[in-house]
Amino acid sequence: MRITKPTFLVDKAKCLQNIKRVADKTQNTSTLLRPHFKTHHSAEIGEWYRSLGVSKCTVSSVSMAEYFVENGWKDLTIAFPYNPLESKDISGLAKTASVNILIESEESLEAANELITEEIGFFVKIDVGTHRTGIEPANRPLIEKLVNSSTSKVLFKGFLAHAGHTYGLNKPEDISDVFHACAQLLLPLKSEFGGILSFGDTPTSSIVEDFSPFDEIRAGNFVFYDWMQKNIGSCDIDDIAVCLACPVVAIHKERNEAVIYGGGVHLSKDFVEEDGEKCFGKVVLLTDSGWHTEIIGSLTKLSQEHGIIQLSSERVNQLNIGDLIGVIPVHSCLAADLQGHYLTTAGQKVEKIVKK
Amino acid sequence: MRITKPTFLVDKAKCLQNIKRVADKTQNTSTLLRPHFKTHHSAEIGEWYRSLGVSKCTVSSVSMAEYFVENGWKDLTIAFPYNPLESKDISGLAKTASVNILIESEESLEAANELITEEIGFFVKIDVGTHRTGIEPANRPLIEKLVNSSTSKVLFKGFLAHAGHTYGLNKPEDISDVFHACAQLLLPLKSEFGGILSFGDTPTSSIVEDFSPFDEIRAGNFVFYDWMQKNIGSCDIDDIAVCLACPVVAIHKERNEAVIYGGGVHLSKDFVEEDGEKCFGKVVLLTDSGWHTEIIGSLTKLSQEHGIIQLSSERVNQLNIGDLIGVIPVHSCLAADLQGHYLTTAGQKVEKIVKK
Repeated sequence: MRITKPTFLVDKAKCLQNIKRVADKTQNTSTLLRPHFKTHHSAEIGEWYRSLGVSKCTVSSVSMAEYFVENGWKDLTIAFPYNPLESKDISGLAKTASVNILIESEESLEAANELITEEIGFFVKIDVGTHRTGIEPANRPLIEKLVNSSTSKVLFKGFLAHAGHTYGLNKPEDISDVFHACAQLLLPLKSEFGGILSFGDTPTSSIVEDFSPFDEIRAGNFVFYDWMQKNIGSCDIDDIAVCLACPVVAIHKERNEAVIYGGGVHLSKDFVEEDGEKCFGKVVLLTDSGWHTEIIGSLTKLSQEHGIIQLSSERVNQLNIGDLIGVIPVHSCLAADLQGHYLTTAGQKVEKIVKK
Repeated sequence: MRITKPTFLVDKAKCLQNIKRVADKTQNTSTLLRPHFKTHHSAEIGEWYRSLGVSKCTVSSVSMAEYFVENGWKDLTIAFPYNPLESKDISGLAKTASVNILIESEESLEAANELITEEIGFFVKIDVGTHRTGIEPANRPLIEKLVNSSTSKVLFKGFLAHAGHTYGLNKPEDISDVFHACAQLLLPLKSEFGGILSFGDTPTSSIVEDFSPFDEIRAGNFVFYDWMQKNIGSCDIDDIAVCLACPVVAIHKERNEAVIYGGGVHLSKDFVEEDGEKCFGKVVLLTDSGWHTEIIGSLTKLSQEHGIIQLSSERVNQLNIGDLIGVIPVHSCLAADLQGHYLTTAGQKVEKIVKK
């Protein structure tokens, strides 16, 4: 494969292994795996899931739902608060696929009943501690109202939660504690009101072995993983299945830096802080069939197209302009979104959603 | 215009006014305006420049150069360190357009002479204090070697600098001081070695009135501006020509928050810090023909598709699910890169580069 500019490499074998690890756990407890496709954005990678028995998925937007329905997916949850302005598009989807939406207010549910023209399902979104969206589990009166407003057209399916607050953790026992605390919040809702429990985030899905409190798991990042998940403890570095190949375009030995063609438009500006410094990615050496997993430096500055990597003086001295070097993304979902396509480590182009 | 999802609005009249302001200053001193097109990424907006007399441009990648050459641009500087791996593509461009590249090492220049097959120009990139790329102005031996290695095929054109360190300033006099300090660093190089001086960044181009030290100005962000530039002092809020229209999908009155459909995949994760809080954008009310410039809140949290806006309790109480609200981007170049297209405030679709 001839790479001349920033190219998002995907190791298919690692992806399959990552999918299989979570899929096996769901099978052990008869939990449905409804993976979130907002990480990979790709019909072809959807097929990798399908080859491992997955037939239902989660998406984060109506546009993404349309793309996956066009590519043969028949059962999707749009895990984003229902946007009444897209009711026509959602109704269109529901003509050919089973579609679930999220509801967290009476206003939204009334709008859905008024504006959606086809049969769809709705989940009541519960806030299990992230405080981004959802209803407090203690707010039983509102939950009851919503469940009781279920109609044959906009049908109550159950409760959905996302433990986004696990992203701030980095100890397996803390992550496991969040999982069980969420189960304690959600199981009583199921007993009281019926429906299923849909839960999911990559840290708990990676660390917890027994998913039995929940009917379905919706995690998605685990297919690729990334440096953030490695820091959280969701994966080992060997599990990270994506790497941006970047040309080295300038070398500044006096400050142990090199400039790569690879910037915010390829990796996003998401970062983690390490020793008080921003880290936008980790530097690795590429091989003929992928990349080494030894970290040799950090991407410490990022502008639109430029990245500045910090290396040891020994490593900087080994670099040449025109070399390709690898960057493990901090946040693979956002980095993947920025690509026009991916390239497998076997040299095959992988198509993905293109913004119109 | 029926907007149902995050939509990047462009106010053409403001863009034209912003272009004209800088173009008029360049005309006063016979300085060439070679604006950077990495902000708008759009052939159509290129035409807005052309209507005001601009015929040469700057781009940040070979791919972007290809797009603008396909759209009729004949004279471009790729303001990014020359990437030898793209030599074939650069040579292809140089068959139909005048192309300049940036050089900052002997190794790069040797590669260019070896690998480029058509006549191109090169600028020696000078580091005027940003320490991202370029040669220290005091490194006369290296500069002399590069200038003397000019050939009829890879021809020395002059010196190019970008004062990226103005982005950390917010007083007009400090920004003006950087401009003049850069002139003092670069003018002696022109006297000693010949060639032209190419300079540019939006803060100095916006604040300084007299560009006469320089032969060309390459700023780009000023066509749109953004909240970061407003904080720097490059523009007034009325000058900002872009705004993301976002559906309101959830309202949390108890914490004075609303959730909008508009996240990191629409705005980028770039932020400014204000009173110790991250700000990913500023909230405004939309009108039939654009947006009000009164700031009514801040976008304080951003995930992949969700944004959380903080408003006064009065404003939160006025919101309804299904409303559209405006977000002034923190960094318009990155937000624009993330769009599939733009929409003018007159309701016309504007095509832009699509990643392949």
